[in-house]
Amino acid sequence: MKELEFSKYISKKFKARKPVIKGIGDDCAILEYTKTRYMLLTCDMIIEGTHFSGKATPFQIGWKAVAVNISDIAAMGGIPRYALVSAGIPRNRGTRFLKEITRGIETISRKFNILVIGGDTNTSRKIVINVTLIGEVEKNCVIRRDGARIGDLIFVTGCLGEGRVKHLKFLPRLKEARILAKNFKINSMIDLSDGLSMDLNRLAEAAKVGARVYKSLIPLSDASEALDKAIFAGEDFELLFTASIRESKKLIKRMGRKEDLPITLIGEIVDRRFGVQLIEEEGKIRPLKPKGFAHL
Amino acid sequence: MKELEFSKYISKKFKARKPVIKGIGDDCAILEYTKTRYMLLTCDMIIEGTHFSGKATPFQIGWKAVAVNISDIAAMGGIPRYALVSAGIPRNRGTRFLKEITRGIETISRKFNILVIGGDTNTSRKIVINVTLIGEVEKNCVIRRDGARIGDLIFVTGCLGEGRVKHLKFLPRLKEARILAKNFKINSMIDLSDGLSMDLNRLAEAAKVGARVYKSLIPLSDASEALDKAIFAGEDFELLFTASIRESKKLIKRMGRKEDLPITLIGEIVDRRFGVQLIEEEGKIRPLKPKGFAHL
Repeated sequence: MKELEFSKYISKKFKARKPVIKGIGDDCAILEYTKTRYMLLTCDMIIEGTHFSGKATPFQIGWKAVAVNISDIAAMGGIPRYALVSAGIPRNRGTRFLKEITRGIETISRKFNILVIGGDTNTSRKIVINVTLIGEVEKNCVIRRDGARIGDLIFVTGCLGEGRVKHLKFLPRLKEARILAKNFKINSMIDLSDGLSMDLNRLAEAAKVGARVYKSLIPLSDASEALDKAIFAGEDFELLFTASIRESKKLIKRMGRKEDLPITLIGEIVDRRFGVQLIEEEGKIRPLKPKGFAHL
Repeated sequence: MKELEFSKYISKKFKARKPVIKGIGDDCAILEYTKTRYMLLTCDMIIEGTHFSGKATPFQIGWKAVAVNISDIAAMGGIPRYALVSAGIPRNRGTRFLKEITRGIETISRKFNILVIGGDTNTSRKIVINVTLIGEVEKNCVIRRDGARIGDLIFVTGCLGEGRVKHLKFLPRLKEARILAKNFKINSMIDLSDGLSMDLNRLAEAAKVGARVYKSLIPLSDASEALDKAIFAGEDFELLFTASIRESKKLIKRMGRKEDLPITLIGEIVDRRFGVQLIEEEGKIRPLKPKGFAHL
């Protein structure tokens, strides 16, 4: 069973009910919290051999375990607050190794003002770390995955295609997400963990719409074979979002005025019957399937 | 680094600050939530080869992954509400296997009225499941690990020593915990996941007290070699708690009146300088070290 299918299967089993605003099916779950704020909850597990190789330093492993979760909170427009960390560590790794993982977790947590409030340590054959991150968001700022509308324009932050190089030390786009959430009406957002093809399909599927992105518009980190990586390789952890044309004009204006919002227009939301398409230079249409998802 | 030491190390790194009432160092973290309630958060990871063998059925694995976390919420006197589930599953396991794990998760979640609100599925070499459980507790009912006082009597629920047999299908002591939390002044509580020796040391350490338990009082499930298992083997998931003598009298009275609270008096809290001791039949004193922790 593919991840997308399994998520569908499991989300049918557990329908949301109050005070759960959104259960499975977005980057974070949304719970009622205070009068003005929702609580956001997300968990991500990273596993040796799947999400990082033996070459990753323990500091990088700790950093990444938290970073991927911050990216999920960012994708909802929220602010991360508390983390619970579970780790499985091989018995033959020493104290220094564990301390270095902790230092990685600590460094990024301090940087983003996150408090680690719980943990569980175990022995295991391969390194595995799960972080559950709890955050919050103003009720009028929350950005969901399923809000895209036909006619919306599609944007991404930063450049794509360098996930494999940067994934162990990437800086989640929290600052940019907060600028978007607080100043603009963003209709939908998702973080690019599994490649543009997979995640754009998720965004389109959630809102029952289609999407069209233009090959020539996709901002690539690197000329050589980066397009395929950008589309299928994942681990870029940039933000993919949509806004109405009217709001997009404001976004583009802001982009020109300040340099704190590196975003690029890459396409538009269309009717569902078109599916998700890549338009190549010669106008050739290439369907983008919900695949990719090649970690490492 | 042993688990106890690592927890100490990491808890120094992340000191609690408001609205965190308690961070690392109890069965759950405690957060401010509503006017009258705290939020409880806990996470536990179970790993193939450490917490279950290849003989465990997928249903049992799913069940246990949630059950161990309910036990942590119970140990605070709380009520579980929401779960986030991360899983790493070997690629060669089929759809039916995943569905059976989900069925295990679903069955126990329904039984305890828990809603699964988030998840993450990955491929990994060995099966690993992390559950983060979010619960709540009335502010005047919360039971912490660190509240034991010299003179308190020590109780356990149920019988000890059968962890290895029952750990894949155990029923967390939630009902009993709620009876204790709502009707009695329980000074401290912890769940027995790593054996009486280890967990009694944790409870004593948290309150900077000593403890004395009587061999002849420990309720064993089974005559043969069960004492050593009860003390060192873990995975019993019974509750260990303390109350003042005055409150203990009420507890014992209730026990005689109703059958819904299977508890046994096993010892008393003493000054720290005595450490943690097992008193054997002949009055011989055997120090109980913070070890055990032999899962499976």
